[in-house]
Amino acid sequence: MNLWISEAQTKDLELRARVKETLFMGKSDFQEIAVVDSHQFGRMLVLDGVFQTSVTDEFIYHEMIVHVPLYTHPSPKKVLVIGGGDGGTIREVVKHECVEKAEMVEIDGLVVDVCKKFLPEISEAMIHNHPKLELKIGDGISHMKQAENKYDIIIVDCSDPIGPGKGLFTPAFYTNVYKALKDDGLFVQQTESPFYHQELITYVNKEIRQLFPITKMYLANIPTYPSGLHCFTMGSKKYDPIQSSVENQQGLTTRYYNKDIHRSSFVLPNFVQELLK
Amino acid sequence: MNLWISEAQTKDLELRARVKETLFMGKSDFQEIAVVDSHQFGRMLVLDGVFQTSVTDEFIYHEMIVHVPLYTHPSPKKVLVIGGGDGGTIREVVKHECVEKAEMVEIDGLVVDVCKKFLPEISEAMIHNHPKLELKIGDGISHMKQAENKYDIIIVDCSDPIGPGKGLFTPAFYTNVYKALKDDGLFVQQTESPFYHQELITYVNKEIRQLFPITKMYLANIPTYPSGLHCFTMGSKKYDPIQSSVENQQGLTTRYYNKDIHRSSFVLPNFVQELLK
Repeated sequence: MNLWISEAQTKDLELRARVKETLFMGKSDFQEIAVVDSHQFGRMLVLDGVFQTSVTDEFIYHEMIVHVPLYTHPSPKKVLVIGGGDGGTIREVVKHECVEKAEMVEIDGLVVDVCKKFLPEISEAMIHNHPKLELKIGDGISHMKQAENKYDIIIVDCSDPIGPGKGLFTPAFYTNVYKALKDDGLFVQQTESPFYHQELITYVNKEIRQLFPITKMYLANIPTYPSGLHCFTMGSKKYDPIQSSVENQQGLTTRYYNKDIHRSSFVLPNFVQELLK
Repeated sequence: MNLWISEAQTKDLELRARVKETLFMGKSDFQEIAVVDSHQFGRMLVLDGVFQTSVTDEFIYHEMIVHVPLYTHPSPKKVLVIGGGDGGTIREVVKHECVEKAEMVEIDGLVVDVCKKFLPEISEAMIHNHPKLELKIGDGISHMKQAENKYDIIIVDCSDPIGPGKGLFTPAFYTNVYKALKDDGLFVQQTESPFYHQELITYVNKEIRQLFPITKMYLANIPTYPSGLHCFTMGSKKYDPIQSSVENQQGLTTRYYNKDIHRSSFVLPNFVQELLK
């Protein structure tokens, strides 16, 4: 059988991966959910036709969305993850010894169930009910409205700014994120590709700069994501990620992140710098 | 018309781009040559079905394969480019004031002719017969056998290590490159994706290390190339690219390269470092 899954990276560009087997296909209240086993990337989670994560390259996204902010803060104790239903982000968060409590608010309970079944190496912290983890199935936007001066770090591990992810890219949401953070808190959001989502990046950066004294963007290479280059936007009340202590950045076994990557990921090509002006 | 061009990035992965128009399709003694105008990337050169360059993102590859070595050497006067038939590499080389002579040896004259016609912004140095440029249509491997102690920098801007590019990845070729360089010379070769061509990268690195006291790898993000992450291997007799003088790295208008990118491009994720052990 010559079976392929195709993702529309833009309206004019498709990435197609050869598939061994479809493991799950279903529909929740929020989206279409699929897990396929591909030859190139192994098992992959696909939401509304968009490649979300694969067992082969998930380590890059999850290490970079977690270790960069957590090593920027000198002692993060309370961490909130919005989204991140596959569990990879929370898996990395609980590895940090200083973290006492890792809350996670994911809107789609079926994503969590499917990932626990088919992507256990990614969702292991959820499977084993890690003692630091407090998992809530619910709306991240509502959750943010209630929280005040509560978190050291907030990680917005959302899907694209369409469908359920849309409300996580609004000024109102960012204002609530700011409010929910402690006085020295910081937050990170995945903000797509500097090649294909330039308007979004410029917009998010502008919004975050209006709230946070330190606003920075950093990059990581993720082959299953459009263009292979992915960016993250950080808003921080006090700590500068580039000045963060190198001594902190030790002790975890990582496959992408290291202390030099921590710094070099903030070095931006000229055309990316232009997006932030 | 719903026209798409498809590239097999690996046997299990395809990138497909929607095409406005096919501008050229032909066959030389060496390969199939096509130029298509795509919605996402504009005009693209395709050799034997492999995307070679596009007018939208060519600046990244060409800036990085040229400015990194040319700013590593304090005063490169004689530069040789092997391959690079689209002319983008030589266009960047002749911008450096210190360069007196830029030789280029391209095996396929039809590639040069087609690029001059359909990709003039890339091949401008060839179109205008830049006074520093000495263009020779011929075999780069033979050319290297004759040269001795002649070049400050050699840039191997080849296609993949199949078809006409194959002989440019052999120990014999690297030995001739070493011989053709002056006592403080250095060379760079494009060496594919750290995700999909790991055996090649490990092999080239091992071969270069046997010849050159300084062997380094650096990275750039190129969306039309497989995985979006591309690497370059540098062998240098004397100058260390990471120690190179920041003061040198001024004066050219660039869209990707800058002095911080020069250094950060040598910072490798852990899994890439593993390939070089």
